[in-house]
Order: sequence, then C-alpha cells, then structure tokens
Amino acid sequence: MKIPKSFKMKWWGWGLSDYNFPIEEKPGVIKYLHKVFKISDLGLKALPQKPNIKESALPSALILEFKNIVGDENISIDQDDRIRHISGKSYKDLIRLRTNQITFAPDAIIYPTCDEEVFKTLKLCQKESIAVIPFGGGSSVVGGVDALASNHKYCITLDLSKLSKILEIDQTSMLATVQTGIFGPTLEDELNQQGLTLGHFPQSFEFSTLGGWIAARSSGQNSIYYGPIEKMINSVTMITPQGEISTIKAPRTAQGPSIKDIIIGSEGTLGVITKAVLKVSRLPIQKKYYLFLIPSFLEGSLITKALIQNNCQVSMIRVSDEEETEALFSMSSSNGGFIKSLTKLVLKFLMKIKGIKSDKFSSIIIGLEGSDLEVCLRKKLMFNLIRPFKFLNLGTSQGKKWLHERFLLPYLRDNFLDHNLLIDTLETSATWSNLIPLYEKIVSTIKNSFPDTSKEMIKVFTHISHVYPDGASLYITILLPQNQKDPIHQWMSMKKNVNNLLNATNAPLSHHHGIGIDHKDAISLSALELDILKTLKEKLDPSNIMNPGKLL
Amino acid sequence: MKIPKSFKMKWWGWGLSDYNFPIEEKPGVIKYLHKVFKISDLGLKALPQKPNIKESALPSALILEFKNIVGDENISIDQDDRIRHISGKSYKDLIRLRTNQITFAPDAIIYPTCDEEVFKTLKLCQKESIAVIPFGGGSSVVGGVDALASNHKYCITLDLSKLSKILEIDQTSMLATVQTGIFGPTLEDELNQQGLTLGHFPQSFEFSTLGGWIAARSSGQNSIYYGPIEKMINSVTMITPQGEISTIKAPRTAQGPSIKDIIIGSEGTLGVITKAVLKVSRLPIQKKYYLFLIPSFLEGSLITKALIQNNCQVSMIRVSDEEETEALFSMSSSNGGFIKSLTKLVLKFLMKIKGIKSDKFSSIIIGLEGSDLEVCLRKKLMFNLIRPFKFLNLGTSQGKKWLHERFLLPYLRDNFLDHNLLIDTLETSATWSNLIPLYEKIVSTIKNSFPDTSKEMIKVFTHISHVYPDGASLYITILLPQNQKDPIHQWMSMKKNVNNLLNATNAPLSHHHGIGIDHKDAISLSALELDILKTLKEKLDPSNIMNPGKLL
Repeated sequence: MKIPKSFKMKWWGWGLSDYNFPIEEKPGVIKYLHKVFKISDLGLKALPQKPNIKESALPSALILEFKNIVGDENISIDQDDRIRHISGKSYKDLIRLRTNQITFAPDAIIYPTCDEEVFKTLKLCQKESIAVIPFGGGSSVVGGVDALASNHKYCITLDLSKLSKILEIDQTSMLATVQTGIFGPTLEDELNQQGLTLGHFPQSFEFSTLGGWIAARSSGQNSIYYGPIEKMINSVTMITPQGEISTIKAPRTAQGPSIKDIIIGSEGTLGVITKAVLKVSRLPIQKKYYLFLIPSFLEGSLITKALIQNNCQVSMIRVSDEEETEALFSMSSSNGGFIKSLTKLVLKFLMKIKGIKSDKFSSIIIGLEGSDLEVCLRKKLMFNLIRPFKFLNLGTSQGKKWLHERFLLPYLRDNFLDHNLLIDTLETSATWSNLIPLYEKIVSTIKNSFPDTSKEMIKVFTHISHVYPDGASLYITILLPQNQKDPIHQWMSMKKNVNNLLNATNAPLSHHHGIGIDHKDAISLSALELDILKTLKEKLDPSNIMNPGKLL
Repeated sequence: MKIPKSFKMKWWGWGLSDYNFPIEEKPGVIKYLHKVFKISDLGLKALPQKPNIKESALPSALILEFKNIVGDENISIDQDDRIRHISGKSYKDLIRLRTNQITFAPDAIIYPTCDEEVFKTLKLCQKESIAVIPFGGGSSVVGGVDALASNHKYCITLDLSKLSKILEIDQTSMLATVQTGIFGPTLEDELNQQGLTLGHFPQSFEFSTLGGWIAARSSGQNSIYYGPIEKMINSVTMITPQGEISTIKAPRTAQGPSIKDIIIGSEGTLGVITKAVLKVSRLPIQKKYYLFLIPSFLEGSLITKALIQNNCQVSMIRVSDEEETEALFSMSSSNGGFIKSLTKLVLKFLMKIKGIKSDKFSSIIIGLEGSDLEVCLRKKLMFNLIRPFKFLNLGTSQGKKWLHERFLLPYLRDNFLDHNLLIDTLETSATWSNLIPLYEKIVSTIKNSFPDTSKEMIKVFTHISHVYPDGASLYITILLPQNQKDPIHQWMSMKKNVNNLLNATNAPLSHHHGIGIDHKDAISLSALELDILKTLKEKLDPSNIMNPGKLL
C-alpha cells in the first residue's frame, strides 16, 4: 500500500487533486464502453468550472473566537478549502459540482486537534447558532457531509483530519485506541507494521476515515470475516454539544440498552465521534482468492449460503450476476487479462463439461485468509461444502487481480461522468428467502425507470458481497447514458422508484452506505422509531446544530 | 431433554414445585461440605413458611376491565400465584422469601395471549396508574422482576407464559419467529425437531424465557460459538405504552442508530418484548467436550486467548481457577467420578511429566461442535494452537458429564441455603490485559468482605466462560457460612465492596446477569449516558409504569 502524504481529494471527483486515473491502461473498459455506448475516447475532459461560492459570512469576531479555540492555523476560510468541503461524492453531488449548480459552501473549515477543541467548538456553535458538519474523508455517497442552508446563522465544517493518531496498541487484548480522523491506508499501514489489521476495506477505503465508517455504519469488503464496523468496536467516544460520551471499555456488558449502538450510525447528527477502541486482528500470513465460474446468480447465492450457514470462515465472497460478470470479463480483457491467456476454446469446453453455458454465466470470488494451517483447513471445508454445486475453478490469479484493483471503481466513475454516463450504486439487504425475488424486482424497477433509453444501453450490475447466515446484501451498479437536460431528475426518479420498492418489500434503504440526505425521506422506520431518534437528538443536540438535514 | 408440562417454579427456590433435587446422588458434594463447613446432612429441610401477603388491592371494577382485555381465565389474584410472582431468584430474593420478610406482592397476574392484549393492558395500566412487571421465567438473579412498592396505585405482573408459540420457521434463512414467553427447553426441543438449535444455554436455561434473555441481555454457555443473545436476533418486537416497535427484518442495515440494541437489555423498563426473529443454527451432529488439567488459571487464560485470537471455532470454553477446580474435583468424587476410575497415582505421574503440580492445578473444558468434518478440522487447529502450553488431556468423558449436569447448580443452591450457607454468583468482563489483575482484586475483595469468618471457610470459585478476541468474562461463585443474624446485610456489604472495586477499575457491573435492582445504584454509566436512558424511558413510558425501580 502506497500511503499518500495528504488525503485531500479533488473537489470535483475521486482521488488526489493531481492524480489522473490511467484509463489508457484499461483497454477492455474503453472497448466495452465503445461497444455498449458508442463512446470511443475515455480520456478525462477539461476540468469542470469551479463553483462560484459566496464569501464566508462568518464575522471576524467569530473567526477570532474559533482561532482562540483551535489556533490560527486550524481554521480556514480559503475558497478552495471551502469548495473542497461542499459535499461528499454521491452522483448527485458530482453532477451538481460539475454543472456549477452550487453556491452554498461552509463558511469556514475548522481543524480541531484534540477532543477539548471539538467540545469548545460545539459549545461556541451552539451559542452562536452555527451548523456543524463533521467531516472525515468526504466520501459519503448519500449526501452525509453536504453543506446545506439551514435555520442557523452560519455553517462550519469540522474536518477531523488533524485528529488522526493511533493513541495506543494493546497487543495482548488486540485493541487499538485510535482517533477517528485517520484515513484507511494510514491506519492499516501502522497496524500492519505491528502484525495487525483492522480488516475494514470499504470501496472508499483510500479516502475515508475511521470516523466516517463509524458514523455511517460502514461495512467493508471483508465484513464476512473481520465483521462490519459495529463488530470492530470495543468502545467509542462521541463529543456532543451536551458533553462527552465514552462507552465502557469491555469485551461485553449487560448494563441496559447499548449506547455504543446509538452512536454507531448516528451520521454526525448527535455529536462528533472522536475516538474508538478497535478490535484488531492478526495480519493474515496467507491470502487465497479463488475465482469460480458458475451457471447463474441463483447458483452463486446457494453456494454462498451453503458456506456461511455451515460455518466456513471465508474472508470474502462476491457473487456477480450474469450482467456484471459479462461486463467484468469484457472490461478485463486487456494485456494480461485471463480470457486471452486461456484459449477461449478450452474455457468453453471446460464450461460445457461443468454444465455452465458459455454465453451467459455468473461468477464468484471466494477469499481465504489466515495462517497456513487455517487456510489449508478452510480450503478443505470450502471445497467439501461446494462440491454439490456446479462450478469451474479458475484458480487464484484473477482473485489476486481483484484484490489489487478493488478500490478502482470510484476513479473510473469520473471518466464515465466526463463522457456523460449516469453511474451510481445502491445497496440493500434481504433474508435468503427474499434475496433473489428482491434482486429481480430491483433490476426490473431500475430498467423500467428510464423509458427514454434503449434497453441495451441500461446496464444494471449486481453482486452479493456481505453475507450472513440469515441473508445477504445486494450491491447494484447502474450505468447508462445521462439525460443531459436534467441528469439529476433522471437519477432522482430512478432512486424514488427503487426506494418505493424497498419500502413496499420491507427491505432496508441501505446495507452500508447510510441514510444521509438521499434516503432520509424514505427511511424505513416506523413513526415511533423515528420518535426515538428525534428524542435522542433533542437530548444530545438541543439546538439542532449537528449535521442538520441529515438522517432525520 | 425432558420437557416438563409446566415451568412454574416453587415460590421459595429453583425447579418445579414438586421436585426435590436428589442430593443423595451427589456424595462428593456432601463430603465436600462436611470437610469445609462441617455440615453433615444436606437433605432439604422443612419448607419455609409462606409469605403473609396482603390481599390484592385491585378493585373489582379494574379486575373486570382486565378480564375484558385478556378473558376471565387470564387474570389471577390467587394468593399462591401472587406469591410465586413476588420476585426472581437472587440470593437476596431467596433469603427474604425464606425469612418471611415479604408482605408486598403484585395485585394480580395477567397472562396475555397476544400482542394486542399486551398493548391494551399497558394502556389501561397507564390510565389507572398501575405498575407493570413483565415476567418470563422469574429466574432473574439481580432483582429484575421483583414486585416493589412504587408511586403507582397498584402493581400487576404480566406473565408472558401464554405468549409462547413458534410462529414461523424459515429453513432457507435459518430464522425462527418466536413469541418471547417460550421457555428454553420447549424452544430448543421444537427447533431440534427441525434439525436446528438456537444454542442459547444460560445456567437458568430450564426456567428462563426468550423474553427474559433479550430483556436482560443474556449470554449462554456456548456464546463463543452461537453468540450472546444480541447476535441471535434478526428483529425484535416490543410493545410500549406508546405503541409497538418492530425492528426491520434484515440481516444488516445502515439506517442510523440501532433501535434493536436499545430494546435488547431494556429489562422491561421501556416496554414488553413479545416477539423476536431469531437466527438459528444447524443442530450439531457431533459434540466433543475435552477436559484438560493445566498448571494455573493464568495458563488457562493464555490457552483460551490463543484459541480465540486465532479464529479457532470452539463451541465452549470454561477455565476454572485452582479453587474452583479443587471444589469441582472433590464434589464429583462420586460413583462414576473419574478420580476413582483413574488411579490417583497414574494421574499424579502424568501431571508431573506435564509439569502440573498435583496439589494445586487448574482445569479447562473446551467444546467442539458441528459436522464430522468441522469437528475434525477444528480439532486439528485447536491442538496445533495449544501445543505450546502445558496441559494434560483427560479426554471427553468428563466434558460429557459437564454437559449433562450444567444446569444443576441452581438446584443445589436451595440445599446450601437450607443449611445456612451464603451462596451467590457475580460476574463481569475485562480485556485480556486486565483480566488476571482484576480477577485477583475481586477474589481478595470478596475474601476481605467477611472479617468474622475464618479464611478457610470463605470459598471463592472463578471461571472464565465467555471469551472474545479482546477479553473475557469472569464468573465468580461465593460460598461461606451465613451470618444468620443479618444475612442480607452480610451479603450486601460484600456486593458493595465488589461494585466499588468494579467501578474503580472501570469494569462493568455485569457481563450477562443485567442490572435489575442489585446493580442499579452502582451502574457504570456516565451522567450523560444515564440521561440518554432516562430520555428513552420518558419517550416510551411517560407514566413510568414499566418495571419501575429497575435498571434506572
């Protein structure tokens, strides 16, 4: 892992401001887009025009007060810095940024360096009616960090990037006490040096922070093994306008309702999560990621279910449906891609033997990690459990490639947007009984949401990637030509249809992206459940300064 | 498992009212008590005198209103029934019952048969100022179901034993939708018939209910494998005076703070938990429970840590300290006990070879469950991981015996109480770094809490039985002669000392027994955390009718 010195992303897209994704190294992607959308050149276009934001409204007296709290160097009203904190990286965010629709930005960015500064900042904001947006990496895809006009006089963003130290590592208890402004790569690198890993790898990994993971109730690509974020937390600290909460440091307690699980997922609306005691794992000695071809998405779900319900400790599972598999295989047909390295004829022949149609098939990546002995034993159990199913084992080289490229999609998205494609992802979860029926409904709902687009240009890719004994997540990528007249309306009407479907089928609006702005109006909670959340909010943030307009 | 037709316990102790524990079948126990406490006969004495409770204060008009809700047959003001619902089974409860110190009992017992009746009952209670105690099996050891005088006009107990059906089993998703008044044995038996198990086996298993497990944040003896109760719950329904909450049925969601984790552990103070969708597991084909002798409790903790931190899926671990091991071995020296079946000489010789002192040693039971292949693979990993440690493997016969006898202690307690012993248990948890230091402090605090008792008559037995990568629980049994002048004061001063110690060392007051009455004054939550719980209470139970005086 190459750790950048700064994690400041370009204001208009993914990655560091001076980094351009080398699309020319992905001839398969270029070929695929040409084939499907007739797009011939995928190079980045000229930079979008910078938003024309208003000057900071913050009076100098208040700026001085903030300076007294955090020091002169830790408050910024610089235009570029404010632009960089306008929003997260949702499709809507990116379109609005690219089309110069934004004039509102936070009045200032505050960079606290300790918990006390956070608390004093919140108290000042409470006193002066200033909205506060806690900000980690700014990678939210649901509007979780967007600066919004509100009832408050001013708006500041609290950027936690200077609150990013590992404070303590307890090797005996395998616990790391960490400030939440730390970015994924730094955290993993420092843990790795001690033979440890957190094992939390969301797709946003490179540009997201521990605090964001906790606030959004995140879940990484290896959640099946290392757990979603809530299973990684022994204890957590949140600074609210009413004071600090540090939950007890213990492996488990029976002391009433779990306040830790109120803080996790609070999306910055109750307070600022500043510290967590993390349950870390041993860095695995061996990693084996297998790629199997399988006859169908349904067969993949059955294989996955068999593994997880029979206690096979795999470290990653990703079942791609037929449409995603086709796109992945087409896009990866570059130099060194495997389609070329095996003759297609041999592959076809093997697939036929295994009963897999070569014109429409699905695929599954299964990862094993651990000590040599663990991987060896799990491999035995895995192959024993999947023996009743149809599959063609393509070995571990493609799995290795997947591991290497797993954080690339957000970069590619900018190229796609540059060439007027709508690209977005959405996700939910369901019990095994409901998974495939829900999948079919979601795909058809999405495809029917674009009546003006020809069917073969509406690509809907689905994979199962977070798996539990009682069900799994569905992760869906949507790719089609943008309606350039009103791209946001095009996207919103699709979102609305899907949210309605999820509500009608009692499926959650999110498995791990969170609620933010985009899901808040359709959130699948009863009136009484919402009342509970509102009551908590009123208690901890009576002036409603914390991330107003999000979640609730 | 032999399922009784009724789970109604005797009012003064453990087990069905007509059942007497056959202490004569435990000559080892009799011998041990004789040796340590000079008690020669352990047979049950004459029944304690029934409490002389006041007549039900509930006016007949209100009784009629309740009858209109639940039907004539589902309300009881019978003296015996009210006496049976006076309290749970804590040491304090039992002493107060046995010494005829109780005059207060619930005015009536209501047996609702559906959620709607629960809600209507709560509304009536809210209107008429009637305190409501939700009651499952009545096995709380922290005062969780005790009837208390309060500000309300009357007090009823809501016995959920008629709300005890399995409503649905989804074999595909391995989920069972179950009403919470179901008792452990019935639930397991019905699941077992379908090839499934919940795997929740607290020591109270035979006389506790699903609702009690959820309300008290329970954890069973196999929590390491099947999880503590919170990991078994996909979704939960709670009826509050303000309405019903049914959390979303999904394997995981990211929709803000977890309301499910507010309901779990709410101890009847927010509402009545009536239904849960449970994550069930496959009934294991094979069970192997090994007994190892080890040099010390410390060594046992290291073995346990090595197993859990290296992903060995054992299904049960119990490390007994030297004092508990000595008592267990003495007490089990009956017909068929293993000490006799091996010649002591051979055992001593083998222990010497393994570097274990035969006059002071510790022991550990490790269970493996699953399919034949799973058990075989796990056994390989287990023996590989424990190889660096000193241990003597005594095979699986004693483990089998432990499995068979694991719910016996609560019965024995009545015999001990009959013979004027103080017997109580307490439990907490700590990170691995703090576990042994905390253990030592707790043991010495307890031993120093009885200055009037000679040291050799104060027995403090400890085991580690719930294990996590970041730490473990400590479960402590205390046995010594009662101060018959004031047994409750004797016990309370010890409890106070231990609670003070736990607070001073930031250890939780409970790992899985809960707060109830006994821990409430020392609960290790900050003022703001308590405020959060109070706010939730005010929202869901504005008239404070739900289990008043507990938890908060």
